[in-house]
Amino acid sequence: MGKFKESDSCTSTAMSPKITGELLRLLRQAMKNCKYVSEPIQAYVIPSGDAHQSEYIAPCDCRREYICGFNGSAGTAIVTEQHAAMWTDGRYFLQASQQMDNNWTLMKMGLKETPSQEDWLISVLPENSKVGVDPWIIAADQWKNMSKALTSAGHSLVAVQDNLIDAVWVDRPERPSTQLRTLGLEYTGISWQDKITALRAKMTERKITWFVATALDEIAWLFNLRGADIEYNPVFFAYAIVGMNTIRLFVDLKRLSDPTLREHLQLDSPSKPDLSIRTFPYESVYTELQAICAALGPKDKVWICDKASCALTQVIPKAHRTPIPYTPLCLTKAVKNTTEIQGMKMAHIKDAVALCELFAWLEKEIPKGNVTEISAADKAEEFRSQQKDFVGLSFPTISSVGPNGAIIHYRPLPETNRTLSINEVYLIDSGAQYVDGTTDVTRTVHFGTPSAFVKECFTYVLKGHIAVSAAVFPNGTKGHLLDSFARAALWDSGLDYLHGTGHGVGCFLNVHEGPCGISYKTFADEPLEAGMIVSDEPGYYEDGSFGIRIENVVLVIPAKPKYNYRNRGSLTFEPLTLVPIQVKMMDTELLTEKERDWVNEYHRMCREVVGAELERQGRKDALEWLIRETQPIV
Amino acid sequence: MGKFKESDSCTSTAMSPKITGELLRLLRQAMKNCKYVSEPIQAYVIPSGDAHQSEYIAPCDCRREYICGFNGSAGTAIVTEQHAAMWTDGRYFLQASQQMDNNWTLMKMGLKETPSQEDWLISVLPENSKVGVDPWIIAADQWKNMSKALTSAGHSLVAVQDNLIDAVWVDRPERPSTQLRTLGLEYTGISWQDKITALRAKMTERKITWFVATALDEIAWLFNLRGADIEYNPVFFAYAIVGMNTIRLFVDLKRLSDPTLREHLQLDSPSKPDLSIRTFPYESVYTELQAICAALGPKDKVWICDKASCALTQVIPKAHRTPIPYTPLCLTKAVKNTTEIQGMKMAHIKDAVALCELFAWLEKEIPKGNVTEISAADKAEEFRSQQKDFVGLSFPTISSVGPNGAIIHYRPLPETNRTLSINEVYLIDSGAQYVDGTTDVTRTVHFGTPSAFVKECFTYVLKGHIAVSAAVFPNGTKGHLLDSFARAALWDSGLDYLHGTGHGVGCFLNVHEGPCGISYKTFADEPLEAGMIVSDEPGYYEDGSFGIRIENVVLVIPAKPKYNYRNRGSLTFEPLTLVPIQVKMMDTELLTEKERDWVNEYHRMCREVVGAELERQGRKDALEWLIRETQPIV
Repeated sequence: MGKFKESDSCTSTAMSPKITGELLRLLRQAMKNCKYVSEPIQAYVIPSGDAHQSEYIAPCDCRREYICGFNGSAGTAIVTEQHAAMWTDGRYFLQASQQMDNNWTLMKMGLKETPSQEDWLISVLPENSKVGVDPWIIAADQWKNMSKALTSAGHSLVAVQDNLIDAVWVDRPERPSTQLRTLGLEYTGISWQDKITALRAKMTERKITWFVATALDEIAWLFNLRGADIEYNPVFFAYAIVGMNTIRLFVDLKRLSDPTLREHLQLDSPSKPDLSIRTFPYESVYTELQAICAALGPKDKVWICDKASCALTQVIPKAHRTPIPYTPLCLTKAVKNTTEIQGMKMAHIKDAVALCELFAWLEKEIPKGNVTEISAADKAEEFRSQQKDFVGLSFPTISSVGPNGAIIHYRPLPETNRTLSINEVYLIDSGAQYVDGTTDVTRTVHFGTPSAFVKECFTYVLKGHIAVSAAVFPNGTKGHLLDSFARAALWDSGLDYLHGTGHGVGCFLNVHEGPCGISYKTFADEPLEAGMIVSDEPGYYEDGSFGIRIENVVLVIPAKPKYNYRNRGSLTFEPLTLVPIQVKMMDTELLTEKERDWVNEYHRMCREVVGAELERQGRKDALEWLIRETQPIV
Repeated sequence: MGKFKESDSCTSTAMSPKITGELLRLLRQAMKNCKYVSEPIQAYVIPSGDAHQSEYIAPCDCRREYICGFNGSAGTAIVTEQHAAMWTDGRYFLQASQQMDNNWTLMKMGLKETPSQEDWLISVLPENSKVGVDPWIIAADQWKNMSKALTSAGHSLVAVQDNLIDAVWVDRPERPSTQLRTLGLEYTGISWQDKITALRAKMTERKITWFVATALDEIAWLFNLRGADIEYNPVFFAYAIVGMNTIRLFVDLKRLSDPTLREHLQLDSPSKPDLSIRTFPYESVYTELQAICAALGPKDKVWICDKASCALTQVIPKAHRTPIPYTPLCLTKAVKNTTEIQGMKMAHIKDAVALCELFAWLEKEIPKGNVTEISAADKAEEFRSQQKDFVGLSFPTISSVGPNGAIIHYRPLPETNRTLSINEVYLIDSGAQYVDGTTDVTRTVHFGTPSAFVKECFTYVLKGHIAVSAAVFPNGTKGHLLDSFARAALWDSGLDYLHGTGHGVGCFLNVHEGPCGISYKTFADEPLEAGMIVSDEPGYYEDGSFGIRIENVVLVIPAKPKYNYRNRGSLTFEPLTLVPIQVKMMDTELLTEKERDWVNEYHRMCREVVGAELERQGRKDALEWLIRETQPIV
């Protein structure tokens, strides 16, 4: 699933507008209430995120949705005494206009006539206004930009410590506090103690004395723990602060009663004093960081990600703050160790078994006319759930027929649900969380006879997929330099797709993770390294007609080409995803010999590896399907 | 010629160190002399550039060379009361160490242990020091960075208006003031008056009231004038300030006596008052800009390039200053009009005639053993100079045999000069200025039998050259997205080259110009547009053995692929350079059918177009050579 696609983890999409008049009245009261603000504020900004800048958020954090009704993944609401406006991008213009009532003005981002949030505020606010925002859910760099623009126009941006949406939110869901799962060395390959030691070594190297971890997946990875606080993402709400001799973990303390967990974290009998974890309530991170900062020596430096919340970032005095685009945890986590790679491979084999079953089942059921986008997605989940160590899906399944396939961020809803048939293209982009790994795969298939144009487009997309997957490139190459390889065949025919080509994938963690990726847009990506795992997912979308995407998760591995210029070494990719790519969709005439060889070798691997597992599991129909679908092409 | 390569326009390379003891003593005196500085300064920074941030500079601006002896294209010298240090990059470590005496410390940039200029200054300066620099030769953004670092350490960066090198420079050359050449519509396609009108339209669109032009090629282009103040670059020292009703040109007034020039600029009888040019002495730009800024209205905005000098930039009050990475002149100049394209085509045909003659001549002369890198370069210049409207070379010829070819920025010197033979690879990268256009072409040839390895590498480079030249891509694509196409074949075999793939080329202007290019390094490039002209020059360099580069200048043209996704339109390239690529160097087995077709079609064009011109000029030997070298391959 592409990083460009939506991540709706809030309530299900409703298409009738939310009635917001009374809510806005209450919010505007709160904006003047001295219980919350020392002086009245003239505007209140409601961003999308949570305090950890998560891509997916928990229901209790869906504040922007609560106040305006719009539940897309991206959008910022701003309420003034007179106005209420919500900014979102082109993917959501229709949905937002349907979900918001006429108290709200939809601000269509990307259109020339749409003002920026800052410009709009400056145009509507009385002189010398105060604009409030919850400093926990705005990132430090966003705060800086907005504050600068407002200040230069005579206004000011002020931090409102109590969230004003929470103040007016009746029956706001509780912050989730699901059971924590410990992961042993057989899954992680390295103990949390060794991860701490490696982190400290990096801190020493850069003369850093403290590290503040705020990203939920980094904290889960660091302690070899998983939770289920956010749908699709096996993370839990927490902060961590690591010093050279101390480790502080901030988490709902009720979660720490489980003996296995206490043992895992050595809470009762730490082996060494500097590996002893002190636990604190989740909410006390602020005061604890304040206390740490009050005691900093003149040369002490604190690492914090520049995407961390403004609230936490500003606790650290500027002279001691070292903001970084990617934390050392993010960088280390991205390079999977051999145990993690083994786990990811196992997860992908199980996932392939489930998909082989799905496709074999679909072939039989579709002619009966009873399979819909939703039921097919449910069936995929059912097959996956039968596999060992299945935990849940890794993102909402994109299951789309015909024209729905051209909507890149499509997710089937009762009112859009189409029936699969032998006349239309079917695209399914789905993935799961297993205890040993995370999957994400897209296949585009036809159960009847695809048109010549569909086959032509599919083949260009396939050529792009292969061009990336088979690319050999020097060590140190950044992923964005490979993006054009995925497009060359489409470009040659005047076609393209308007999304990136790949994203990093976590290991039983978030399906989207930094710092690597393959996109024409990102130049802040870190170089690819052996052990990194990314997706390779070019596509083509014909509006109103069909969508095509071919996605494998691939592992960066060393390559051994003929020469080795300046001893730099080379890299290439190995597919982890092992699901046949439908030959019926290919115009094999358009493939070069090398590309045909790639397809045949890929299918040979699918047959060999997944076939053995299907056989072991005694899944005969799926095995038969696999064997038929992996016949060599000529 | 790649933008990465050197541009030595200073004195010829001397390899014995310059004696600098007395010079440094005088400079240190000047650093305390109240004639120049109100308070003594503890350090003085001497950058490489001139007041226009030119890539090539005039002898009078070679101040860093004068003070330390090192004459490479890149380097910054800093002199304190106790120390003298010079920073340069890996291309120049050897040369700099040979050219500087032991008063100087060579600071090897790119090595881990080498401090930045700021860190070094902070480590050697007494508390509260003043660091001086000539604000005219430091760009505004460089000033900002250095000033920030010094201030945070308790020092300050101060502008020293009189250049202290000039103060101690005996017999400093005069600033050149060569005769100006006017270009009529038959060369420019558009009058300077229409260029001014178009500029003002862009200013109106962006609500800009003044534009300050500081780049010499932009000023030459704007007024349809050329000079010869800087070797290889047909520019002249000038500034221009354009308002909505006024045009100010700052130039040595002695240059304006020529009646043709006065007529061209309509100095004596302007057609309209707002197209009347007011001329001022070159030096008065500062006071004149001050006067303009003193009279600015509250909403007036002034455009200036962010690469302009600190001195001029800071004249404009911050509230009125709108710095831009590329000026509207730079952007318009890059898109050549039909007249300019026609001129560039003509220039390239003439240039090809000269090169065909050169190669035919070399074939005959080399076996005699008398041709050297220098004499071959001279011969190339001689043949070029016989062509109509030849003005001079567009950069110093890179003429290199065997191992010298692996030195990317090589330029033959008496002490390195090798003899051409039938046993070694010969690389020649050369170009010329004609009144109708600028050329830049690299060919790599063998006059005997190239080894299998040389042929293999050459063929990979050729594949890369073709991949870029034949690429089809959507409108709006930035050049850096094409860079990997040039490398894919080399990468596949573990090879690469450590420079960019292409640079913009001016039309009878600088051989390197922005804002477009093809490089993995630049993400600030502007999208390619039909009419832009860039080089396509991948290479491969085997240290100590040989260098390969294949360079054509190519024109961006509309492409007409089968489909037209979202009506975006597509682009591709048309080669302007029409010089055969040596078939003997190719391993044709490694070429695909498409690549063979490209080579044959390219050679057919060379034969047809250049053949006709060779015939017209009666150059029989060269024609014979051309016909032989353009036989189709199978």
